[in-house]
Amino acid sequence: MHDSHVRPKIETIRWVGDENGYAELIDQTLLPSCFKYLRCDDIEQMWKAIRVLSVRGAPALGVAAAMGLVLGLKESSAKNGEALLGDLTEYKKYLESSRPTAVNLFWALDRMERIAEENRHMTALRLRRRMLEEAIAIRDEDMRTCRALGKKGESLLKDGDSVLTHCNAGALATAGYGTALALIYAATEAGKRVSVIADESRPLLQGARLTAWELKEASVPVTLICDSMAAQVMKEGRVDAVIVGADRIAACGDTANKIGTYGLSVLAKEHGVPFYVAAPVSTIDMALADGADIPIEQRDGEEITRWSDRKIAPDGIEVYNPAFDVTPAGNITAIVTERGIIRAPDREKIAATIE
Amino acid sequence: MHDSHVRPKIETIRWVGDENGYAELIDQTLLPSCFKYLRCDDIEQMWKAIRVLSVRGAPALGVAAAMGLVLGLKESSAKNGEALLGDLTEYKKYLESSRPTAVNLFWALDRMERIAEENRHMTALRLRRRMLEEAIAIRDEDMRTCRALGKKGESLLKDGDSVLTHCNAGALATAGYGTALALIYAATEAGKRVSVIADESRPLLQGARLTAWELKEASVPVTLICDSMAAQVMKEGRVDAVIVGADRIAACGDTANKIGTYGLSVLAKEHGVPFYVAAPVSTIDMALADGADIPIEQRDGEEITRWSDRKIAPDGIEVYNPAFDVTPAGNITAIVTERGIIRAPDREKIAATIE
Repeated sequence: MHDSHVRPKIETIRWVGDENGYAELIDQTLLPSCFKYLRCDDIEQMWKAIRVLSVRGAPALGVAAAMGLVLGLKESSAKNGEALLGDLTEYKKYLESSRPTAVNLFWALDRMERIAEENRHMTALRLRRRMLEEAIAIRDEDMRTCRALGKKGESLLKDGDSVLTHCNAGALATAGYGTALALIYAATEAGKRVSVIADESRPLLQGARLTAWELKEASVPVTLICDSMAAQVMKEGRVDAVIVGADRIAACGDTANKIGTYGLSVLAKEHGVPFYVAAPVSTIDMALADGADIPIEQRDGEEITRWSDRKIAPDGIEVYNPAFDVTPAGNITAIVTERGIIRAPDREKIAATIE
Repeated sequence: MHDSHVRPKIETIRWVGDENGYAELIDQTLLPSCFKYLRCDDIEQMWKAIRVLSVRGAPALGVAAAMGLVLGLKESSAKNGEALLGDLTEYKKYLESSRPTAVNLFWALDRMERIAEENRHMTALRLRRRMLEEAIAIRDEDMRTCRALGKKGESLLKDGDSVLTHCNAGALATAGYGTALALIYAATEAGKRVSVIADESRPLLQGARLTAWELKEASVPVTLICDSMAAQVMKEGRVDAVIVGADRIAACGDTANKIGTYGLSVLAKEHGVPFYVAAPVSTIDMALADGADIPIEQRDGEEITRWSDRKIAPDGIEVYNPAFDVTPAGNITAIVTERGIIRAPDREKIAATIE
C-alpha cells in the first residue's frame, strides 16, 4: 500500500511500515556535509522537522504535513472514525502552526481532513489506514507530476546542453524528482549529456548546499558559481538555457520565484539564452491577474548579515532582504507544466492549458 | 614632513614619527567586527600585513609597499647613500614577494628605487628621510587624486539620490577617500543627501564587510543587499545611479572590475539607470585596444565552497570563480577621472583626456 510505483533516486521523504510505522526524511539542515535520514516517530518530531527546515520546498512540505497527521493519529485512543476525526482536527491545527505561511502545507492538511470527513463511518483503525493511503497518494501524485513535467520539458534540451539554474527546484524541494531539475533528470534518462551551472543562491545558499548536492548524487555534472557570475558565464557562451522553478504564476504568466530569478531573465534576454520556468499546473493562480498583485515577502536581515554565529556586516546598517521577485511573462520563453509546454506564455494560452 | 595636508576621515594607512617611526594600517581582516590599527615596526610585519590582506586595494597597496621599504631601511647599517641603495634593492625584492600579482605594489617600489638612485650621493640618513618623503608623497598623491575625482564626479549626483555600488572602491581600497565612493563622499560634503545600496559582493564580501562599514563610519546611509537583489531594487525604482571602480580600463573604455560588474551594467541599461565607472587616469591602459585583451583571472574555488572552516557545498563538484569581468564601453554612461568626466567613452575621448 505504501510502496510507490515510482522510485526516485533521492527519496526526500518516505513512510516506513504500516499505519503504526514512521516517516523518514532527508535532513536538509545537515547537507551538504552530512547525508542522513531523520526518523520521525511522532507528530512532535515532524512539527520540529518542518519548523527548523529539515524539510522545505512547497510540494515536500505538503507530503510532510500529511505524514505528520498520520503520526499524530497513532497516539489517538479513539475507538471509531467520528472520534478519530475529532482528534485529527486537533493534530491538524498543531501542524498548521509549524510554518504558518506554507500554502502547500495547509492544502495537504485540508485534503486529509476532507477525506477523513468522507470516511468518518469507518472504524478508527480503517480510517487511520485510509489516512496513510492518502498521505502516500499525495506523495505519489507529486512524484508523477514532476516526472510528467520532466518528460514534457526535456525535449527543450539538446545533447551537450549546459543549463543554468537558481536556488533548488529539485528533488529535495519535492517528493523526489523536482521541477526545474526534472527536465535535467529526464533529459539525462533520455541519454542526453546535459550539465548544470548552479547559482549558489544567497542568502540561504540552496544552490550550493542542495542543488549541487543532489545533482552530484545523480551523477549530473554540476559547476557552482556565485550569483554575480551568471552574466559572465552567459557572455562566455557557457549557457544554453536557464531553467528555474516557481512559487506562484499569475494568470498572464508573470512568475514569482526565488530572489535573483528576475535578474537572470534580463541577462538571458540580453544574451539570447532561452529562459524556462518549470512548475506544476497547481502553481498557476488564475485569480491573480498579473505579477503586480503578488506581494514581495521581506525576510530577516540577519540572513544576510550573519553567517552561523559570525557577523559579516557592521551593526546599525539597513538591510533589504526580499525573498523573491517577479519575472514578467515577456521575459519567459516558455512555462513547462506536466500538461505540456506553454511557449511565449499569455493569459489565453495559460487558461487553455489549465482547463 | 610626514603630515599630509589632506586629512581623510578614514586613514587606511599612515606613518607615525620620523624616518625611525612606524606605519599603522587598518586591519581589514578584522572588519567589520573590530576596528583596529595594526602597527608595523619592521619590514617583516608589513610584508605579512600585505600577504594576509590586512591591507588590500590597488592604491593602498602601493602606499603600503613604499612604507614597508622605509621600515626596511631602519635596519640598514649603511653609512652612505650608495650602500643604502644596495640594501634597498634587497628589501624591494623581499616586498615584491608578498603579493606577486599586485601591479601598484611593483609600481610604487620602482618609483622608490628610482628616487633612491637619483639621490645616491646623499648621506644614508638624508636618503632615508628622502625615502620617507617619497612614501608619503605617494600616499598624498593618491588622496589628492581621489579627492579630485570625487569633486569632478559629484556633479552627476542630485540631492536625494540613491547609488548602487559593488565591491569596495572606497577609502579602504585607497589611502583614504576612495574612487567610486569618492563621488558619494564629495556629494555629501557638498550638502547633498545621498544614500548607498551596497552589493555584498560574493565570494569575499567586500561590500558587506568593508563598503557598509566605511559608509556607516562616514554617516552615509547604507543598505546592504545580496548581489542577486540588484535587479529587484532597480525595478522598484530605488536606484538613481550605479557607480563602480575599475581594475583596468582599455583604450576604448572597456572596463575590467570585480566579478558582477558586467551583469550590473546590463541590468542598469534595462532599467534606464546611468552606469558610472570612477577611476584615476592611471587605471587606463592605452596599450590595451579593448576588453578582449584583458585576461580573466580564475581564483580558488574554495573561496565559494568554504566559509571559514565550514563546507557549504559538496565535495567533488566543479567550481567556476572568475575574479572579475569586463564591462563593454557601450554599457558605460561615463567614466569619471580626476581630470574630468568622459561621457559615452570611446578611444578618442579617452585619448584626449589622458594626453
